[in-house]
Amino acid sequence: MLGLMQDWPLLCHKVIDHAATYHGQREVVSRSVEGPIHRTNYAEVRLRALKLSQRLARDGIGIGDRVATMAWNTWRHLESWYGILGVGAVYHTLNPRLFHDQIAWIMNDAEDRMLFVDLTFVKLVELIAPKVPSLERIVILTDDAHMPETSLVNAVSYESYIAEADGDFAWAEFDERTAAGMCYTSGTTGDPKGVVYSHRSNVLHAMTALQPDMLSLASRDRLMPVVPLFHANGWSTAFSGPMSGCAMVMPGAGMDGESIYQMLTQEKVTITAAVPTVWLMLLQRMEKEGGALPDLSRVVIGGSACPRAITKAFQDDYGVDVVHAWGMTEMSPLGTLCSIKPEYAHLEGDEKLDLQTKQGHPPFTVEMKITDDENVSLPWDGSTFGRLKVRGPAVSSSYYKGRGAEQFDTEGWFDTGDVAHVDQFGYMQITDRAKDVIKSGGEWISSIEIENLAVGHPDVAEAAVIGVTHPKWDERPLLVIVVKEDRSPSKEDLIGFLDGKIAKWWMPDDVIFVDDIPHTATGKIQKTALRDQLKDYSFPGA
Amino acid sequence: MLGLMQDWPLLCHKVIDHAATYHGQREVVSRSVEGPIHRTNYAEVRLRALKLSQRLARDGIGIGDRVATMAWNTWRHLESWYGILGVGAVYHTLNPRLFHDQIAWIMNDAEDRMLFVDLTFVKLVELIAPKVPSLERIVILTDDAHMPETSLVNAVSYESYIAEADGDFAWAEFDERTAAGMCYTSGTTGDPKGVVYSHRSNVLHAMTALQPDMLSLASRDRLMPVVPLFHANGWSTAFSGPMSGCAMVMPGAGMDGESIYQMLTQEKVTITAAVPTVWLMLLQRMEKEGGALPDLSRVVIGGSACPRAITKAFQDDYGVDVVHAWGMTEMSPLGTLCSIKPEYAHLEGDEKLDLQTKQGHPPFTVEMKITDDENVSLPWDGSTFGRLKVRGPAVSSSYYKGRGAEQFDTEGWFDTGDVAHVDQFGYMQITDRAKDVIKSGGEWISSIEIENLAVGHPDVAEAAVIGVTHPKWDERPLLVIVVKEDRSPSKEDLIGFLDGKIAKWWMPDDVIFVDDIPHTATGKIQKTALRDQLKDYSFPGA
Ligand SMILES: Nc1ncnc2c1ncn2[C@@H]1O[C@H](COP(=O)(O)OP(=O)(O)OP(=O)(O)O)[C@@H](O)[C@H]1O
Ligand SMILES: Nc1ncnc2c1ncn2[C@@H]1O[C@H](COP(=O)(O)OP(=O)(O)OP(=O)(O)O)[C@@H](O)[C@H]1O
Ligand SMILES: [Mg+2]
Ligand SMILES: [Mg+2]
Repeated sequence: MLGLMQDWPLLCHKVIDHAATYHGQREVVSRSVEGPIHRTNYAEVRLRALKLSQRLARDGIGIGDRVATMAWNTWRHLESWYGILGVGAVYHTLNPRLFHDQIAWIMNDAEDRMLFVDLTFVKLVELIAPKVPSLERIVILTDDAHMPETSLVNAVSYESYIAEADGDFAWAEFDERTAAGMCYTSGTTGDPKGVVYSHRSNVLHAMTALQPDMLSLASRDRLMPVVPLFHANGWSTAFSGPMSGCAMVMPGAGMDGESIYQMLTQEKVTITAAVPTVWLMLLQRMEKEGGALPDLSRVVIGGSACPRAITKAFQDDYGVDVVHAWGMTEMSPLGTLCSIKPEYAHLEGDEKLDLQTKQGHPPFTVEMKITDDENVSLPWDGSTFGRLKVRGPAVSSSYYKGRGAEQFDTEGWFDTGDVAHVDQFGYMQITDRAKDVIKSGGEWISSIEIENLAVGHPDVAEAAVIGVTHPKWDERPLLVIVVKEDRSPSKEDLIGFLDGKIAKWWMPDDVIFVDDIPHTATGKIQKTALRDQLKDYSFPGA
Repeated sequence: MLGLMQDWPLLCHKVIDHAATYHGQREVVSRSVEGPIHRTNYAEVRLRALKLSQRLARDGIGIGDRVATMAWNTWRHLESWYGILGVGAVYHTLNPRLFHDQIAWIMNDAEDRMLFVDLTFVKLVELIAPKVPSLERIVILTDDAHMPETSLVNAVSYESYIAEADGDFAWAEFDERTAAGMCYTSGTTGDPKGVVYSHRSNVLHAMTALQPDMLSLASRDRLMPVVPLFHANGWSTAFSGPMSGCAMVMPGAGMDGESIYQMLTQEKVTITAAVPTVWLMLLQRMEKEGGALPDLSRVVIGGSACPRAITKAFQDDYGVDVVHAWGMTEMSPLGTLCSIKPEYAHLEGDEKLDLQTKQGHPPFTVEMKITDDENVSLPWDGSTFGRLKVRGPAVSSSYYKGRGAEQFDTEGWFDTGDVAHVDQFGYMQITDRAKDVIKSGGEWISSIEIENLAVGHPDVAEAAVIGVTHPKWDERPLLVIVVKEDRSPSKEDLIGFLDGKIAKWWMPDDVIFVDDIPHTATGKIQKTALRDQLKDYSFPGA
């Protein structure tokens, strides 16, 4: 017996329909790539997305076609997503910070037919486009007045492209499992892998994101997604924002502390989200120049572990709640958020900050477990760590073209590649990447825990811990340090600093000082490259 | 091209799994039918629901079987729903306030195989059960110590029934469109009609309900659903509560002002929901005996129009936000909520109360429109009213056994039978039921608007307006009044009170005073019965 409820497929363009109908005048404010602040609203965004759909359909773009975007967060990028989605095509976000060969490889892998690109990246695309034979047309996200000189063939300005349509168009209708978007993983641990979202997964994920224990977006909020749409599906904001009817503030190319501060304060942003490095820049700017954040109520921080000092500064100095978040491209991407459950509501000061170093607990639609290498579930005691595995309607079932099949098991669990422990109340904490875990005498040492402690040393700018082969123990930890300007701590200083804070057998066997630690295009420490760089290192006397 | 996301069906029992895993120790507090306050938590509720599933399976109950419940809101009723859902059977809530013949008719229509019943209703069921041949077994929601003398054959106590199972059981797996629950409409405008929810619709509806502009449930909330689970799918609380991880406070049979006050204050309830009459009783109790509501932050009021005086008292006297809500059994049931969008954030005092007499705006997953009789959409100007039609994944596609097919059109819109206007910001206001609308000289007069005004008169306890045939105008409004104790307003007083507040041609042609206005089992004015009662009335001189 089936229920007698309407067949109403979960399609992404229904989200912008909702926003335009019930929150039509709500602002979408952007720092345009051309310079000035630009103001529009959901009703206009929808209308222009409809025009784009209509125009794309005329170019023969339809169900399943991949259309790439390489762009900052602006109203035009947002419109592009909905325009692409509206004909059943697949938005494919590109990270412009990757090497251009890597971008070309990704575009060829995805067989992108079109590319929407910001002015900023036209020169970059001139290098890439000739290597991508599937590419038929390039739309530059500007108007004719700002069109650059370019060697690109068949390039057109976005404004003139959509001006050829009148918007008298109906969104395509199709199964909710149809592909909606594509995003490659950051490539921190190896080659980027293609993740393909469906309309259903995007809609369910956005509904999940709205919950009070998650982003908690209300129509009275003003959301600034500083996290670019090209990072891990934009953390759902392109859908959860319009779905909630909140105003959206788009930072464009202005990712520096000063620009972010201006947008936060001038546009009265109430909630924002980005990786730790962005907030470090903002806090440094505020420490130097002064300022306050009277409208901002919470900031979501994830992508890599949020340093305790950032959380403390936001909360104690500026009265802004920090919500630590963990997610992955493969999870659409939100996995856990560290909102405060009643069990922990009494915590204050240092104890609260301790809790907030954890990555948090999952919402309904995300299931998680930790297991040993034999897939046996481990206890949730807040210290036993193991492989973190997840399941849910917005979690990948496979990578594009079947890569990485070993990460998916038959019961539908996806191995995140992260190593974590979980406490009795379901708060998860990442202790490592499975590929970075250090195996000493058969036991695991968490590199992230040691790093987190080491960056607490006043002379340390950045710290990384890697495993180096050891004749007796298989592997032992090596601490790699970048020191702050004009500081020169000794090895002994650093070891002494860690002493008593970690188990004796976790203590790094050596400390080395370097000028730089290699980073990925999303700003994460790239341990593959670091290990490569240090491949000739061996422990003194070993 | 399909997305590469996991196939994770939206099944109701995943909700209690989530609650038990991440909020396992969160309290479920009930006023038991036996008397004492009872405390349990989500982990225990889930375990006992698993036992119930296991036990039901042993009795041959499985996919699609209807299992009725006639019970107050308690932990046992909540467990029953999940236990029934867990084998793929269909919970079918019965309203004990209906005439017993009507209940028997409904049970036969649904062909219920089992019935879970509270002690309160055993005598009632003794009258009904012999008339329902499909009924195989009756479970009384108590323990053996409290089992009553009863003529019911094959009756067993809930506690001994589930004690026969150990809980070592796995929830059934099936398509998310499988029937989950059944609830008949209130029968205000005619015979009750059967609505059949699916697992998918219940889950999507609960996800919608959690949004900040809707119920806004967080794990730190303590929710008291005063609205019974047998009214319109319990307003989603059986699913949205556990999904959010909030504590639940179940009022049991204690629906009077004093009992409700005790639960609100002793259990530190932060959010509650019920029909206006419940709140009238609470406010009367508080006016008489005094008291405060320091923990309560918001109260959701719907089912019939929320009188302005109730909203004012909660907000001005007790500092509790009122959220007016409109919904229907056929909508799972939440349709619109009157949360405050930024467009109206500046309103205060009377202007804010005016806004709150509106039923509000729909969330994502609910689409609405107003049309004339020819299905042409009408403008959203806050005054033009028409038939209210809705669409969404938690809206009925048909009634059970295909009744009322005329309410469903080919484009998937469901005609609510309500008449409403919508303002430019999407705030909807119900002006009438289509069946109650008064057609005077081809134009519509809203009976609800006149009633809302008339109850504002200090001598009026209750007011109803119905159309009476008129030789010249077809129909003209008649105002029917129940006066407060010891008051005796004249017809002229009442007409004078309305003068200037409504259009001249809306003015009732006559006023009559009655002792009682007939009500439905859910406390709504039953205009069919009222018209019947007054069928011999004709206007003086007409
Ligand atoms: N709050 C956080 N704390 C610690 N690590 C985090 C946090 N949020 C995300 N991460 C890390 O980022 C990963 C997800 O990042 P992303 O999907 O961008 O690609 P990546 O894993 O860095 O790259 P690749 O999968 O290609 O190696 C997580 O698996 C986790 O290791
Ligand atoms: N806030 C509200 N203001 C005015 N009317 C409301 C409100 N909430 C609900 N209603 C009325 O209640 C109806 C839904 O009630 P329900 O589903 O319990 O059955 P019913 O419509 O009363 O009975 P039946 O459909 O059998 O005649 C709505 O269609 C609307 O007329
Ligand atoms: Mg990864
Ligand atoms: Mg009805």
